[in-house]
Amino acid sequence: MVVVVGELINTSRKVIREAVEKRDSDYIQQIAKAQEEAGANYLDINCGTMVGEEVAMMEWLVNAVQEVTNLPLCIDSPSSEALIAGLELSKSANPMINSITAEEKRLQSVLPLIKKYNAKIVALCIEDAGMPETAKDRLRIARDLVAKLEAEGISQQDIYLDPLIKPISAGDIYGREVLESIRLIKEAYPEVHFMCGLSNVSYSLPNRALINRLFMVQTMAMGMDGFILDPTNKDMMGALYIATALTGQDKYCRGYLKAHRKGLYA
Amino acid sequence: MVVVVGELINTSRKVIREAVEKRDSDYIQQIAKAQEEAGANYLDINCGTMVGEEVAMMEWLVNAVQEVTNLPLCIDSPSSEALIAGLELSKSANPMINSITAEEKRLQSVLPLIKKYNAKIVALCIEDAGMPETAKDRLRIARDLVAKLEAEGISQQDIYLDPLIKPISAGDIYGREVLESIRLIKEAYPEVHFMCGLSNVSYSLPNRALINRLFMVQTMAMGMDGFILDPTNKDMMGALYIATALTGQDKYCRGYLKAHRKGLYA
Repeated sequence: MVVVVGELINTSRKVIREAVEKRDSDYIQQIAKAQEEAGANYLDINCGTMVGEEVAMMEWLVNAVQEVTNLPLCIDSPSSEALIAGLELSKSANPMINSITAEEKRLQSVLPLIKKYNAKIVALCIEDAGMPETAKDRLRIARDLVAKLEAEGISQQDIYLDPLIKPISAGDIYGREVLESIRLIKEAYPEVHFMCGLSNVSYSLPNRALINRLFMVQTMAMGMDGFILDPTNKDMMGALYIATALTGQDKYCRGYLKAHRKGLYA
Repeated sequence: MVVVVGELINTSRKVIREAVEKRDSDYIQQIAKAQEEAGANYLDINCGTMVGEEVAMMEWLVNAVQEVTNLPLCIDSPSSEALIAGLELSKSANPMINSITAEEKRLQSVLPLIKKYNAKIVALCIEDAGMPETAKDRLRIARDLVAKLEAEGISQQDIYLDPLIKPISAGDIYGREVLESIRLIKEAYPEVHFMCGLSNVSYSLPNRALINRLFMVQTMAMGMDGFILDPTNKDMMGALYIATALTGQDKYCRGYLKAHRKGLYA
């Protein structure tokens, strides 16, 4: 089944940044609850824009959110200090770390945390040489990442590969190459999971929300099974339920029909 | 590029049946023009519901439509008599026949028409043993169809395979198996095209139009490149333009941006 990581608690969003600056835990908790009720499986916590305060803000956010939900958290930072701050306070037996890459420095700083905190790991297909262009680039980086993670005793089921989505406005092959990479990676590693955000794909184009939604549905046809998104967006979640049924992951279409009857989606 | 066959001129639609019964060529011509202006590449002509009158009605429809458009027609009937009636009057150098199947009787009756009228052929994955269940069933029937068509001197580029879409409400694997079959057939026959209608997939479910649209977008991720649909449906065509860009078939996203600027779609 598809895993949904609620993306809303991120200080790059102005409303969240303001709430964090005012220590407005009511607002943060309301957003946490709304995402849980809308069907999130994890809640992302990202305060990477709070330069110099990221560790303290991560601690405050994790504590605030955990007062109102038992959902596992997805501790989101490129900094191992901020990751540790969030993971130390995380109550879940299996939190998620967002993210590691194949860049040597980041790899070495994040790798020890995965086993220590019994975490699931989002692994971005980025290497020291840069961002991937083609599906084959992504497969090569994925192989590198899976090998290094497995060497640390991390099982494929705990790895969530992010194929790295780039804007189709910057290169018209970028959508196609991501779709193909999902197929290639799934063929090579059937037990590995996927995770990605969707908004990059539509950068600078009109109708971004629709483009993001349709790309989500296409990646699901290729085997994508995890997204960082706004679960309170009914259009997005409606499309996710439908795509789940269309890809044979919804026995008797029960999940879709239930969501429809509740009036929750679409 | 994706080929769009405009589906609206079909006497199973009440408005068309009434227009045909009244010999209201103005209305039929208006629908033909509207589909052309909306981006159709072919116009489907189907009067299969006019039992006992199909041949005469096919002739009337083909003549009426060709008075206002030069678009090639897709002559649509299970009956070779009706097909011949339409093809004889068709002015296009390369009309489309919809359809042949792997059922022996239908195969033998339609096969001679393809070369005779220099037609493109929609080939449904149905055999005497019945409808396909799995992707492998579809690949097996596709192999049979392609072999028999090629033996008649028909090139793969003129074959439009229809994988046969069945309702996901009748079997939760039916969406997934079609998606997988497109990939398998494309791998086996890279030159062969595809063609399908979309409405079956959503039969008996709520939000049918949205389900159809999302399934179209998913099939395009797998390599589907032809649809029989309503080109005047802006939601559908908007999704088609976006999916074309997302699958790397729209240089610099020009087709999508042009459609957007014209205010035509989405």
